[in-house]
Amino acid sequence: MKKVAVVLGSDSDIPVMKGCVRTLEAFGVPYTVHIMSAHRTPDAAHEFSAKARENGYGVMIAAAGKAAHLAGVLAASTTVPVIGVPVKSSTLDGLDALLSTVQMPKGIPVATVAIDGADNAALLAVQMLSLAEESLAEKLQAHKKSMAAEVLRKNEQAAAKFAEQA
Amino acid sequence: MKKVAVVLGSDSDIPVMKGCVRTLEAFGVPYTVHIMSAHRTPDAAHEFSAKARENGYGVMIAAAGKAAHLAGVLAASTTVPVIGVPVKSSTLDGLDALLSTVQMPKGIPVATVAIDGADNAALLAVQMLSLAEESLAEKLQAHKKSMAAEVLRKNEQAAAKFAEQA
Amino acid sequence: MKKVAVVLGSDSDIPVMKGCVRTLEAFGVPYTVHIMSAHRTPDAAHEFSAKARENGYGVMIAAAGKAAHLAGVLAASTTVPVIGVPVKSSTLDGLDALLSTVQMPKGIPVATVAIDGADNAALLAVQMLSLAEESLAEKLQAHKKSMAAEVLRKNEQAAAKFAEQA
Amino acid sequence: MKKVAVVLGSDSDIPVMKGCVRTLEAFGVPYTVHIMSAHRTPDAAHEFSAKARENGYGVMIAAAGKAAHLAGVLAASTTVPVIGVPVKSSTLDGLDALLSTVQMPKGIPVATVAIDGADNAALLAVQMLSLAEESLAEKLQAHKKSMAAEVLRKNEQAAAKFAEQA
Amino acid sequence: MKKVAVVLGSDSDIPVMKGCVRTLEAFGVPYTVHIMSAHRTPDAAHEFSAKARENGYGVMIAAAGKAAHLAGVLAASTTVPVIGVPVKSSTLDGLDALLSTVQMPKGIPVATVAIDGADNAALLAVQMLSLAEESLAEKLQAHKKSMAAEVLRKNEQAAAKFAEQA
Amino acid sequence: MKKVAVVLGSDSDIPVMKGCVRTLEAFGVPYTVHIMSAHRTPDAAHEFSAKARENGYGVMIAAAGKAAHLAGVLAASTTVPVIGVPVKSSTLDGLDALLSTVQMPKGIPVATVAIDGADNAALLAVQMLSLAEESLAEKLQAHKKSMAAEVLRKNEQAAAKFAEQA
Amino acid sequence: MKKVAVVLGSDSDIPVMKGCVRTLEAFGVPYTVHIMSAHRTPDAAHEFSAKARENGYGVMIAAAGKAAHLAGVLAASTTVPVIGVPVKSSTLDGLDALLSTVQMPKGIPVATVAIDGADNAALLAVQMLSLAEESLAEKLQAHKKSMAAEVLRKNEQAAAKFAEQA
Amino acid sequence: MKKVAVVLGSDSDIPVMKGCVRTLEAFGVPYTVHIMSAHRTPDAAHEFSAKARENGYGVMIAAAGKAAHLAGVLAASTTVPVIGVPVKSSTLDGLDALLSTVQMPKGIPVATVAIDGADNAALLAVQMLSLAEESLAEKLQAHKKSMAAEVLRKNEQAAAKFAEQA
Repeated sequence: MKKVAVVLGSDSDIPVMKGCVRTLEAFGVPYTVHIMSAHRTPDAAHEFSAKARENGYGVMIAAAGKAAHLAGVLAASTTVPVIGVPVKSSTLDGLDALLSTVQMPKGIPVATVAIDGADNAALLAVQMLSLAEESLAEKLQAHKKSMAAEVLRKNEQAAAKFAEQA
Repeated sequence: MKKVAVVLGSDSDIPVMKGCVRTLEAFGVPYTVHIMSAHRTPDAAHEFSAKARENGYGVMIAAAGKAAHLAGVLAASTTVPVIGVPVKSSTLDGLDALLSTVQMPKGIPVATVAIDGADNAALLAVQMLSLAEESLAEKLQAHKKSMAAEVLRKNEQAAAKFAEQA
Repeated sequence: MKKVAVVLGSDSDIPVMKGCVRTLEAFGVPYTVHIMSAHRTPDAAHEFSAKARENGYGVMIAAAGKAAHLAGVLAASTTVPVIGVPVKSSTLDGLDALLSTVQMPKGIPVATVAIDGADNAALLAVQMLSLAEESLAEKLQAHKKSMAAEVLRKNEQAAAKFAEQA
Repeated sequence: MKKVAVVLGSDSDIPVMKGCVRTLEAFGVPYTVHIMSAHRTPDAAHEFSAKARENGYGVMIAAAGKAAHLAGVLAASTTVPVIGVPVKSSTLDGLDALLSTVQMPKGIPVATVAIDGADNAALLAVQMLSLAEESLAEKLQAHKKSMAAEVLRKNEQAAAKFAEQA
Repeated sequence: MKKVAVVLGSDSDIPVMKGCVRTLEAFGVPYTVHIMSAHRTPDAAHEFSAKARENGYGVMIAAAGKAAHLAGVLAASTTVPVIGVPVKSSTLDGLDALLSTVQMPKGIPVATVAIDGADNAALLAVQMLSLAEESLAEKLQAHKKSMAAEVLRKNEQAAAKFAEQA
Repeated sequence: MKKVAVVLGSDSDIPVMKGCVRTLEAFGVPYTVHIMSAHRTPDAAHEFSAKARENGYGVMIAAAGKAAHLAGVLAASTTVPVIGVPVKSSTLDGLDALLSTVQMPKGIPVATVAIDGADNAALLAVQMLSLAEESLAEKLQAHKKSMAAEVLRKNEQAAAKFAEQA
Repeated sequence: MKKVAVVLGSDSDIPVMKGCVRTLEAFGVPYTVHIMSAHRTPDAAHEFSAKARENGYGVMIAAAGKAAHLAGVLAASTTVPVIGVPVKSSTLDGLDALLSTVQMPKGIPVATVAIDGADNAALLAVQMLSLAEESLAEKLQAHKKSMAAEVLRKNEQAAAKFAEQA
Repeated sequence: MKKVAVVLGSDSDIPVMKGCVRTLEAFGVPYTVHIMSAHRTPDAAHEFSAKARENGYGVMIAAAGKAAHLAGVLAASTTVPVIGVPVKSSTLDGLDALLSTVQMPKGIPVATVAIDGADNAALLAVQMLSLAEESLAEKLQAHKKSMAAEVLRKNEQAAAKFAEQA
């Protein structure tokens, strides 16, 4: 199975991206984690991205805050799909990272998820990998069912709780 | 090869999405075009999405404006990756469609591209399909090279033009 | 009397919606509480909404955060008025939920109240029900008077307090 | 049947509100149109609103731009539900009118629709009236079906058009 | 000397407005404090405002949050200048109150100060009163000088502190 | 009677400020018009402002776009009230000028009106002058009445027009 | 004298950057113009930037729209100061380019000017070059005086014009 | 070597600007720290700025919040480059200071860095000074390498940590 590269712009992004790694593991998808900066280690980022496909990566996930260029810079050097996770920082509530990630110019797309949307980045990566890996489609379907079951269970709890109160 | 479904929330979205269809054709990717509304034809949207994988679709692209729920609603019923294109409408300059598309809750990702980013939606779909279709990776690489060549050519024109003026 | 359905997109929305339930009870309006997700349990949401009118519901209140599609998805399947409560989440200060709820396309309105405006959602539901239930109009009028009286009382306290200081 | 009052903050709002009046007529709902200003004719606005219920109005629709206080000011003097239509003006793309209309404080809700959402304001009014007027529920159901049919028809046209091109 | 009316939309606005009252006292300007709501006690607000001039008020200061209509509603009923203080509430960081206060339509101005700008509202009121009250102009000039002196003193402290460090 | 200084940051602001001058003339208020820049002619701006009171000015109106510092810079050098008119320029829809004008720090208020709110700036100036000039209070009251009469006349026209159609 | 590199992300940025080139010429500063893309020609951009200092460049000016990464990407590979010009594109009114340019993470600054601020980018470059080139300081001083003179001349025209009207 | 002037609009800005001073010291650049206000001590600010060049300053750094005019006001009186640091205050998350600093009109540029971007302001100042001071270019290059080395080290730590977990 192809691997997923999880690339963080800074080690301060590790906490927000925990859910990403957990989800990839839950689906049994191989992954590696990297800290690379579009601005402090541009060569390393470029080199890694340029060889991502031949090194067995099927998807890259890039998380960065503020003027978040990381996903775009990785996407510039590869033909593998790149998922961008805008990370909220201490000002502007994540809007800067969102616009810097999603508003990519024609020719170089970045598949952007919600601000701090680490879990969804992993799920999206699994969906992409499922194009080549039928077994993941089944796991995704099972995950969807389990999410639905959890909501239905909570619905019953809430209905019961509020019925009692009334 | 798996197909791409291009789903528009309204026929008023056809002009903005022309570039999407042209790009898919340029890559020789099979696609179908649909007009479905998350709100006016929810059943049709749900039914189409729920059967997308078994009907041979590998990716769905959904374009919608305002409170753009279409991509999210399609993503709710499938495990195939869904690409969302926020469409600018007459107020708020596309911000409403962008936030409604990208800020998806945990569990149901939408791969969001730029506002009116129709070409990039198609390129992202091709990148995803390339996970299973090696030939597309080569075409993407060639496309990348041709984009670079075009920029380099324009760079020379500009350099020449401004050198003359100086 | 027709019932009000209070639908939450997640059980994390229960705290912010407490005021809604309290207000409905204060007016003696029958209600039920549900947890349904536009994205995780779309079938349940659709089914509930499609039968809301015949099941005796006169109004639905839907609360959701981020790309808040719940109110719109419910409104797609019913002719009963749907009130949307945008819920503030950890990023963007509620703006995403507000725009995703209020900017509905032509044909499917959602009656949107303020971000986290749980109490007002209930009051608006009571106003709607009062179209068919004359007794509620009187209760609303009494509630208006009691709000005014409370402001007038606080006005006197403030006037007194600041007069002393001067 | 109870009447709908369509109140405009200025005669410059007439063009944007045409769709509101047309929709009310299509549903056979009695309505009257007024020009009142929260700021230039506060007495008239207050007086009209305070007597709206006894004068046979079931719903008020208020359209205004900029610091759009009209809906809130009408809602202050009545227990009838008030629908607010934020109108886009020459600056800020409608955001000022949206926030001024929807962010009402606790106790005085305004049922806000999209910026320039005149048609939806009328539909929402009809949904409210349908609580007391069963025949309107049927008309709304028929309208929903006709909207769906129109989308399905356009879907077929689009599918055919793009199939030909391919 | 003419009086200043400090009108708060809610008693929850008292803390943010403390600086306003303190500043008025420091300038020896007579004032009264009121709690009135544009929406809960519209009659009281209208009545107070309509008689403000004849009751000896020269300026009104109105503080309110969210869809802050209070300043506009007071301004509608008087020819006395009205100063609006947008108050930050739990969502949208004060932007809603700012736009609702400042974007007044032609004919009814509100003199808007910064979000939570209570002190400046008082200073602005004093500046207005100084048009008729020469003594206030002198006090304002003295206040300006004392502010400058304080900045110059802090400048020296900072210069000294950083010179030591270097 | 004290004079009003209308200060424009650039001659490109003349068209948007025409309504300001017309309104001042309608009220018979003496005024002068100036073009001064907080950044290109800071000395002239400072000098004018510092002597405004002794030169017979009662109010200053400052109009500027983008990072609109003019009103704040004038306010820094005077104790006369300064009204700021944020002017919309080619980007950001006036939001930059609004925030640059209204968000003044403690100690130096600017009485901000709506973006491009030239007429209201003049009216606000007249209201301020009326503190010392009783005759202006009467003119303002007459102006208020004539505005109300115009709205009432348009209301009748609209009522008649829509009654005919029905 | 050191040279200025004017780098455009696309030839569509040439019109907005005309003022930049004109201003550099007016000051007699040597410059070259380039079209390079952070995403389409990342290698060329990196290579150019990495050798900028040794190739005699003292400042780089980078203009780009949307998720404007160009300035940041150039700044990553050089120690020469980089000036960023956010370019307004068809959506979001330039806000995306502004935030993507200015919100750079710690370690890699970009000297950002106003949206579409081409002239100011050139002036800022001249100011920087003036640190090593005394003659430019004199030209800048002369330019400042001529700007002031132009404003003063327009001030007189306006004063005359409005005095006549009065 | 020319000096850097670090100018703060208020002593409350000292904490956020610590990193600026530390960075200047790390590069051995001479600097002085000042507290000056565009609005409370306009004369001092003007005077300091007008003589900055002849007093040996090569760059000015100005930090201010809210309607942050300080950088622009300093830039108005000098030909030395001025770097603006928008400071986040209690409302609007720094957006007001950012727009007030960066959106400068034609003729008076301010080199704006990120909100609260104190370290980057210092680095940018060093880059500017390096135009005349070759030794700083080497220090900047060394700093760039050390930043890269730190990211590479963290990358190895992260890779190791996550490899263990897997």
